[in-house]
Amino acid sequence: MCGTDSPVPSATTGTRENDTRDTLININLDHGDPTMYESYWRKMGNKCDITFSGYDSLSYFANGKSLCWFLESKLEEQIKRLHNVVGNAVVDDHYIVVGTGSSQLLQAALYALSPADEPEPINVVSAAPFYSSYPEVTDFVRSGLYKWAGDAKEFDKDGPYIEFITSPNNPDGVIREPVVNGDQGILIHDLAYYWPQYTAITSPANYDVMLFTVSKCTGHAGSRIGWALVRDKEVARKMTKFMEISTIGVSKEAQLRAAKILGVISDSCLDPKLVNFFEYSQSLMTDRWQRLREVVKANDLFTLQKYPLQYCLFTGDFYESHPAFAWLMCKGSEEDCEKLLKGHKIQTRSGRKFGSDPRYARISMLSRDEDFNIFLKRLMAIQGLINGN
Amino acid sequence: MCGTDSPVPSATTGTRENDTRDTLININLDHGDPTMYESYWRKMGNKCDITFSGYDSLSYFANGKSLCWFLESKLEEQIKRLHNVVGNAVVDDHYIVVGTGSSQLLQAALYALSPADEPEPINVVSAAPFYSSYPEVTDFVRSGLYKWAGDAKEFDKDGPYIEFITSPNNPDGVIREPVVNGDQGILIHDLAYYWPQYTAITSPANYDVMLFTVSKCTGHAGSRIGWALVRDKEVARKMTKFMEISTIGVSKEAQLRAAKILGVISDSCLDPKLVNFFEYSQSLMTDRWQRLREVVKANDLFTLQKYPLQYCLFTGDFYESHPAFAWLMCKGSEEDCEKLLKGHKIQTRSGRKFGSDPRYARISMLSRDEDFNIFLKRLMAIQGLINGN
Repeated sequence: MCGTDSPVPSATTGTRENDTRDTLININLDHGDPTMYESYWRKMGNKCDITFSGYDSLSYFANGKSLCWFLESKLEEQIKRLHNVVGNAVVDDHYIVVGTGSSQLLQAALYALSPADEPEPINVVSAAPFYSSYPEVTDFVRSGLYKWAGDAKEFDKDGPYIEFITSPNNPDGVIREPVVNGDQGILIHDLAYYWPQYTAITSPANYDVMLFTVSKCTGHAGSRIGWALVRDKEVARKMTKFMEISTIGVSKEAQLRAAKILGVISDSCLDPKLVNFFEYSQSLMTDRWQRLREVVKANDLFTLQKYPLQYCLFTGDFYESHPAFAWLMCKGSEEDCEKLLKGHKIQTRSGRKFGSDPRYARISMLSRDEDFNIFLKRLMAIQGLINGN
Repeated sequence: MCGTDSPVPSATTGTRENDTRDTLININLDHGDPTMYESYWRKMGNKCDITFSGYDSLSYFANGKSLCWFLESKLEEQIKRLHNVVGNAVVDDHYIVVGTGSSQLLQAALYALSPADEPEPINVVSAAPFYSSYPEVTDFVRSGLYKWAGDAKEFDKDGPYIEFITSPNNPDGVIREPVVNGDQGILIHDLAYYWPQYTAITSPANYDVMLFTVSKCTGHAGSRIGWALVRDKEVARKMTKFMEISTIGVSKEAQLRAAKILGVISDSCLDPKLVNFFEYSQSLMTDRWQRLREVVKANDLFTLQKYPLQYCLFTGDFYESHPAFAWLMCKGSEEDCEKLLKGHKIQTRSGRKFGSDPRYARISMLSRDEDFNIFLKRLMAIQGLINGN
């Protein structure tokens, strides 16, 4: 069920097939490319098939009556339904704004929440290690509305600021709260990973601005669909305005396909005849994390973050977080984890890019089985548990 | 063939059905929403059908080998093929960058072409009347890289600048050349309307940066697909970087559907058994413009831009421009054309928004037949040619 169809040799026996592909190819675990989920969607056969005819969806406008004028009503409906089924966010007193992935919504939120008439840009912070895109997304066009101000833990200026709270956190999977706690703080909650395969659902999130993305929920990163749940009408309106200026809305095909996929996920949670998407994904993640921990603990070269066991309201059972990324630290004399792994053709992202230490590297746990297995083999080779390649 | 299934009474007879819908609804001709093209796509039946399964296109990455890492190879191929079939742009020595509509590519081009290390933002200009989105797209996040500097005809500063050249122009349909002609000018050619239904194809465009969009070519505005043809590799790379930071690429569904649709258009130009898309659209546009000119010339209240007859290399015949927008001017004492039309429930866009005179209004010529017909009826009513409503 967990799709481990090309099993890795046990770390204790150290046997190894001399597979040419294994030794030559570069394994890209830098991006969180969620191809792991393909196996589930293949199991679902044609349940998610969607066909577009040439005459569908020509208009810029959607068919809904939402404040977000380009939001398809089917997508709105399925977003609300899924949050209600999973219990991970309150939707009823929030507006939904759809985006081309949550990256665009991050910018829309910055645009909407920045004071319009200030001579200086508002400071934007997040506690290190923070998502590596935050500094770049905030500063790439040198906006006069907002500017990146670094690690929230070191921020001590007076006045208004915006804080990104990513929970579970990217890169390290930790559940987070705001850290600045100033009296003029504006909070953006990035909840991309607050889904049952990654962490226990302990309560429905109920914040002013919450960001989600299809990429990390269902694995459909190629669709570029994200959504924001926004309490304040004026903020939702300004975010919608941002999307209008930036891209005149969001692809209708992607929205309608996302609606279909989210619908099938909700169905899978409610219909016992279907394979429950989150149970299936939990089992994939649990298996991968167990195997990774087994490899790591067999030697003293690396360590991994530990996570508490928490009661999950969705499954009605205790669950330990199994984040989408491993936040691996080199313990030995090696001071650059990304470089060490790169030397073994494993492409990861340095801790440095997350405002943290280069002894850390972020490693995607969402690759296809084949790549994950090669990754484990190479990690064992680095540790001298098997012959290196 | 021209889809005039609810014909407007002739301007000379002045008869009028008292249709409730006609008198009550607001006709939105503000946006250039290209729903006119639906009739062609309905004629094509299932030729453009495309089905996505649940397991398709999960990855952020595309299958191609393009410099633009998220560009689907099928789309790249069909873009090149269509330009070669139509002869409206040179593609062979250009890189293709795909965007979420051409709005996003405008910003990507500004980002890529602005000097990176200057203390002051570069000036961005376009000759009035210019596309109403240029000022907003340039300034909405108050970038320190580029800033809107208004009408290119009035620009007289030394040093580098960026000039948007929209040809045929939005709003007025005129064929354009650069106007500043400074020695440090960087040019962005917005060729959204350089297709045979709007204007004669007089030569293949061959500029450094050329922007196109599916919305105005095929009518699929809801897909949000645009593309840039970029001569310089480094500029193409920086534009791709912009798209990566801004939205981590472009919806795969929208790209693959656009590829299918562009492919069918090329087929329709090459296979005599199919209804040629551009001939069909030319005939729709010709009919609408004839009818509009007939209404306008029947009275002295309005005037329309005139266009030269030019030889079109694509059709091998002479063609007068039939722009996507009418640029209507009030000649009489009325000084606000948008307001006048709004009073008759016709929503248009004021000349003021294009850096021009409020006596002008831009009116979409791409609505559904029904709305276009109501528009003509109301225009006649304003002119006193028939009873007002």
